[in-house]
Amino acid sequence: MADVMIQTPYLLYLGSTSDPLAIKTSRGIAMFRQQDCVGEFVRGEDCLTLGLPRMSFAEAAKAGAKTLVLGVASAGGALTDELVADALEALEAGLDIASGLHGRLRDVPALVEAAERNGRMLFDVRDPSGDLKVGNGKLREGRRLLTVGTDCSVGKMVTTLCIEAAMKARGYNADFRATGQTGILIAGSGVPLDAVIADFISGAIEELSPPRHDGGWDLIEGQGSLFHPSFAGVSTGLLHGAQPDAIVICHDPVREHMRGLPHYQVPTLARTIAANLEVARLTSPDVIPVGIALNTSSMSEEEGRALCEAIGREHGLPCVDPFAHGADPIIDRIDECFGNSTQSTRRSA
Amino acid sequence: MADVMIQTPYLLYLGSTSDPLAIKTSRGIAMFRQQDCVGEFVRGEDCLTLGLPRMSFAEAAKAGAKTLVLGVASAGGALTDELVADALEALEAGLDIASGLHGRLRDVPALVEAAERNGRMLFDVRDPSGDLKVGNGKLREGRRLLTVGTDCSVGKMVTTLCIEAAMKARGYNADFRATGQTGILIAGSGVPLDAVIADFISGAIEELSPPRHDGGWDLIEGQGSLFHPSFAGVSTGLLHGAQPDAIVICHDPVREHMRGLPHYQVPTLARTIAANLEVARLTSPDVIPVGIALNTSSMSEEEGRALCEAIGREHGLPCVDPFAHGADPIIDRIDECFGNSTQSTRRSA
Repeated sequence: MADVMIQTPYLLYLGSTSDPLAIKTSRGIAMFRQQDCVGEFVRGEDCLTLGLPRMSFAEAAKAGAKTLVLGVASAGGALTDELVADALEALEAGLDIASGLHGRLRDVPALVEAAERNGRMLFDVRDPSGDLKVGNGKLREGRRLLTVGTDCSVGKMVTTLCIEAAMKARGYNADFRATGQTGILIAGSGVPLDAVIADFISGAIEELSPPRHDGGWDLIEGQGSLFHPSFAGVSTGLLHGAQPDAIVICHDPVREHMRGLPHYQVPTLARTIAANLEVARLTSPDVIPVGIALNTSSMSEEEGRALCEAIGREHGLPCVDPFAHGADPIIDRIDECFGNSTQSTRRSA
Repeated sequence: MADVMIQTPYLLYLGSTSDPLAIKTSRGIAMFRQQDCVGEFVRGEDCLTLGLPRMSFAEAAKAGAKTLVLGVASAGGALTDELVADALEALEAGLDIASGLHGRLRDVPALVEAAERNGRMLFDVRDPSGDLKVGNGKLREGRRLLTVGTDCSVGKMVTTLCIEAAMKARGYNADFRATGQTGILIAGSGVPLDAVIADFISGAIEELSPPRHDGGWDLIEGQGSLFHPSFAGVSTGLLHGAQPDAIVICHDPVREHMRGLPHYQVPTLARTIAANLEVARLTSPDVIPVGIALNTSSMSEEEGRALCEAIGREHGLPCVDPFAHGADPIIDRIDECFGNSTQSTRRSA
């Protein structure tokens, strides 16, 4: 996946579901790549909407869409007959197909045949590239930031994207590096880390984020948590492969226990910071924390800001809800600690 | 793999190689399961030998062999034409085939056909079971010991097998749980952890070592090292899935740098013990170290014993070369810390 870009603009598939959670991936793309979305495809009148223009596949192709994104979750992640029928119609209309479902496009002969006949591409976003290498931990040039978390699903992707937007707004060269299916569809490329073979976790991230020489930053989407007994192996390999100069710690302040595991408590922020720095130091001895990102969507604006201020003061770090308040205080800290070499280059040019 | 046992006795395949490293897996089986090996198969006169009776496939079947073990490493782990031809002949002679090669038996139609026709089984030891679950970290009954290491290839499998032998000799119920290809062929079952999808590392170990209620021990073969930047993710998930009551730290005292990575130093034993306890405590809060296992094969008997004594004293732990000196001092420590409930049961019976 890492080496092939999914072409934009996208047509976002919503289908016929009435479950808001089922269109989570399409919604994420609409939030962070709205300029690259020409429209949405729905199957009926009273379906969910993302507020984009409604289009048929032919209309979307005419409007410049290159790829139909199946950003929906069916039961069990299967490619249903309805999804296959719609994908076939989209291929005939001249669109590529990208899918984050478990069921693979390339395992449906009719889709493979229609794609070949129309000269179109099929992207199974959950398929890692076949030729991954084992990580080597060699120090590589360029700046890297990794989001880490007290738990799974605490806003690591959103935080990383908000940091990318804020850095770009200040003239940084900065690139989001995706490690999950929604992130990959937002970025157009990436590594589906949860589907990589265990021996290649760190190697996959070294490949995702190669040395860079432009003074810019790779902003790597974190996965899992060192404190989640199901997924800490993935988080460990990700820390080692990312070789981060900086980490941002993501946290959901109202989470009652580790996701899916009522018998496991959420670790404290202090413990999370210490453990992530300790693990990261193996491949990046000078790594530092540059911020804390809270998801405050469950509280009032005032409560959210007060909580961020209190937690930031407690840990001596900028603390924000990056989606609600922007990530600027974190970028300020990055400026202080690392300078903005992109801007320096520009000023001296 | 975990649920299907490979049938013994074995016929060990050595083929036509003259490279001692290439028959490492067959040699490991001959060392630890000699009573289950009826013989060896070699292709020429001046080939390597493990000192077992030389047999044709038909002779081996007649002598009671159930499985031909392809315990050899070809270049790139491929199934060569020679290997396939020999495997076909063995199937016709009535043997199952087990292979630790990367190239899969089940991908060779002629082998699949011959196995079906003869009612025989093909075991691809590097194929994880298809229906692994995500780990849940729930506290489970039974005692578990895990070997961990300062690095890869420092004797974790050998140490685990020596501990199994020493515990059994004292009347413990104790079972080696294999996580690598040679270990799986020695045990007859296990999980090839390096081939498991990243999200399922800890879940695969929970499945490999389910709750036990007989007062006995599962002795789980470690993999990698928390300090190896390529494989620490696997080691982390293994620690969490194993939920060990006890760990034994394996170390090669003459290793100059991390295996394959000249730019990484081997960590100290003290650091290795501390880091492994810290990670293990997430799922097993009361975990303790019960011994250190050194590979002293590069030194004299006297030097080896002196080094073990010095290192043991330094860390307050029994320290042995379990292959050279036996694992008894480690079992003594297990007795002290956990008691021998199997023996207690027997005494009271």
